[in-house]
Amino acid sequence: MLTLALLLQAAAPAPAAAAKAPSEIVAAAPASDWVDIAADDLLVMQLARDPAGKERRVLIQLMPPPFSQPWIANIRTLAKAHWWDGTSVNRVQDNYVAQWGDATEKKPLPDGLQSTARRSYQSAAPIRTFALSTGGLVPVGEPRFSAITKDPYADRVTVRRGFPIATNASADLEWPIHCYGMVGVGRGMSPDAGSGAELYAVIGHAPRHLDRNIAVVGRVVEGIEHLSSLPRGTGALGFYEDPTQRVPIASIRLASELPEAERPRMQYLSTESATFAAYAAARANRRDAFFIVPAGGADICNIPVPIRKRP
Amino acid sequence: MLTLALLLQAAAPAPAAAAKAPSEIVAAAPASDWVDIAADDLLVMQLARDPAGKERRVLIQLMPPPFSQPWIANIRTLAKAHWWDGTSVNRVQDNYVAQWGDATEKKPLPDGLQSTARRSYQSAAPIRTFALSTGGLVPVGEPRFSAITKDPYADRVTVRRGFPIATNASADLEWPIHCYGMVGVGRGMSPDAGSGAELYAVIGHAPRHLDRNIAVVGRVVEGIEHLSSLPRGTGALGFYEDPTQRVPIASIRLASELPEAERPRMQYLSTESATFAAYAAARANRRDAFFIVPAGGADICNIPVPIRKRP
Repeated sequence: MLTLALLLQAAAPAPAAAAKAPSEIVAAAPASDWVDIAADDLLVMQLARDPAGKERRVLIQLMPPPFSQPWIANIRTLAKAHWWDGTSVNRVQDNYVAQWGDATEKKPLPDGLQSTARRSYQSAAPIRTFALSTGGLVPVGEPRFSAITKDPYADRVTVRRGFPIATNASADLEWPIHCYGMVGVGRGMSPDAGSGAELYAVIGHAPRHLDRNIAVVGRVVEGIEHLSSLPRGTGALGFYEDPTQRVPIASIRLASELPEAERPRMQYLSTESATFAAYAAARANRRDAFFIVPAGGADICNIPVPIRKRP
Repeated sequence: MLTLALLLQAAAPAPAAAAKAPSEIVAAAPASDWVDIAADDLLVMQLARDPAGKERRVLIQLMPPPFSQPWIANIRTLAKAHWWDGTSVNRVQDNYVAQWGDATEKKPLPDGLQSTARRSYQSAAPIRTFALSTGGLVPVGEPRFSAITKDPYADRVTVRRGFPIATNASADLEWPIHCYGMVGVGRGMSPDAGSGAELYAVIGHAPRHLDRNIAVVGRVVEGIEHLSSLPRGTGALGFYEDPTQRVPIASIRLASELPEAERPRMQYLSTESATFAAYAAARANRRDAFFIVPAGGADICNIPVPIRKRP
């Protein structure tokens, strides 16, 4: 009888156990899948305390080479010069951006800034080997997202070295993607490409039409809510009409400039890890308990890179 | 000489005049391209006044048939019963949703609510004629967005009758798309499909994995900033941990229940108009003065339907 029962059990379809949620996959990642964000790649922005006296700290991870390097060099120079201290968040446009810098546009910039130009919105892509697969040509040795991330803005999109990246059809140029939380460089009309002194964070649906039109320099990795929940400006483009509405910036520092004990220690999930590939696949095919119909795909901006405090 | 000059002018390449911005195309639409939102399709949500005493009004357009009709019928019943008066916004999760309803989960529902089921997350698509074009099969007599909106979540996406809509490969089923500002129905674990008493608005990047997993019932057409700029909840899923953080709802009414003089009059740009097609094409290929590289495509959620007050 026992044997028969077991056989019957084996023959019946397995109960539909809910698949792991993306967050569960990430929680199970081995420590070796987590990459430290270098202190020289981490900006620490302290806004003025909120009306209730609570601290408002925003952490921004700068992009790795080869992306947007002239602006990123300038951002390090501006931070070391304490240039942003006493400036403010001046523009908050709903479903778009929160932008900060010198509202007077008269504060002298520090010495040593590099010139910038639109050509640096894109970078030469590394030489890669492609193989023919059922999904078309796919780069060998890279996460294969092309099958799940049909993209209206670029021929190929992926996540590499911790950031969402787009590539052109001939795979010789690549550029960073404007997703939620990404930080870019405000500018005037082209050929002005911005110095890096005026920055914004995306606080709405990914404004992908800005890709290759503005420099992307990094991403908010903690504290985006201190920008995204600010009152919206009522002026054109969401600028605050009344100067008293501006949100003062107490300071912006590189973590590497802070005393060791005060440095935030953050990590991102290696985008080259097997865990990340499983996480991305789960994001594209939610089968955890709440879900009924898995999508079969995901927008590249709906596969955000997991971030955590270093344990 | 005059003739020669004219010929020379004709032979020279035209000066690269900046193309019209999407907003300029919309501003030039004839009055006949604007469609009134019926008073019976418009919800008027009054939140408690903000700490400075300012009114916070949110207007929500309900979807037209055949979409999500059981929930929309319930929402009209709940509004007419004044059921939401005294409830609150209880959950604000960054880059996701702001959700409102009865925090106690004990308030009795009014009589006359319809039962709901997951099958109504999708609708039978209208019978359409398709023609072969360079972009593949395209529906005859409908805006042709398939060429510009490659989509990772659905075989075909478009904007029809004022809302973003997805269609399956066999073009016999369609469903609404979760874009920024869309309003959906909270639910428990399936087979619960929610009554319509618990609602949320999307306040972040389009959570498209919710498509076909939750009922979409409408869209915020004014006042989204009163939801998107609320403080984020610090509990699980962004629920407010302290009941005093909840944002009281003074009332939710159908505009048709308000005295004529108090009814908001809103219009949307006909998604079947030539103006909308030109606007969508311009969103996909920004050539106005600020832009350098037109994208050549657009995410369906980056073609938001223009809304205005009735002049």
